Amino acid sequence: MDDRTALKAGLFNVLRDVQSFQTTHLFPELWSLANHDEEISSLLHNFYRRLHLPVIARIRRLNPTLDEADAETVAVFISSFVEGSTIFAGHGKPHAGRMADLASIALETLVGMVETMTPERLHALREPWANAPPEISGPAEFLLREPVG
Amino acid sequence: MDDRTALKAGLFNVLRDVQSFQTTHLFPELWSLANHDEEISSLLHNFYRRLHLPVIARIRRLNPTLDEADAETVAVFISSFVEGSTIFAGHGKPHAGRMADLASIALETLVGMVETMTPERLHALREPWANAPPEISGPAEFLLREPVG
Repeated sequence: MDDRTALKAGLFNVLRDVQSFQTTHLFPELWSLANHDEEISSLLHNFYRRLHLPVIARIRRLNPTLDEADAETVAVFISSFVEGSTIFAGHGKPHAGRMADLASIALETLVGMVETMTPERLHALREPWANAPPEISGPAEFLLREPVG
Repeated sequence: MDDRTALKAGLFNVLRDVQSFQTTHLFPELWSLANHDEEISSLLHNFYRRLHLPVIARIRRLNPTLDEADAETVAVFISSFVEGSTIFAGHGKPHAGRMADLASIALETLVGMVETMTPERLHALREPWANAPPEISGPAEFLLREPVG
């Protein structure tokens, strides 16, 4: 199976797993506990690191312009969506019936992003991020400097 | 401010908020509690519903092909990424230093997705999702029927 199909299959299946009672109920406990207990935090993030390793390798094969660190950021982006979907469309959640549509967006948009991202675009917000004022109010200044079309 | 800039600004600022101690620590408690307490679950999802209403309206202005339900699915997709980013790149989390890069992917990829999604592509996986066998193993069959390039 080619890497593109394998990435899509992995996403499809992990979103199906998110809808199991066990995953919807276990992971929010771990996320909460990780904020209170360093050992659980360390075990949880080792779990995610091991989970990401083959995904990072696959991302680099699909997009050789990304180095290991950038491919890891892309993997974390994908995982953020998957884990967050638990809250809205997990087992018994208000948008559980939309998971097929969320999967459709994910397979198209996230896999397309993996294949077309460049290091330059991935790093494009480092300066505005570092220079953003501490208070969060109104639009970030760099956006207002963009040409508005 | 145009809707595209406003959506990007909102994403940028909500990802900055995710990195506050309060948001990183409060929300995982609410996600956990919502699995145990129906009143908290209801309050939490009313909070998200109110949060999503202006986003849904903005998505529909940016992409008039999407009806209210489809625009809500797109809003839930974006929110899933944002909430999930708490776990990996929130306050004190292992990938906190990558949030600028995650924001860069989000502003480009998610806003691009909002502008170009069609109802047909959004609904493309409904049949394979409904027909997927209960056990999760190996690639979903519909993927193997795709032309592999």
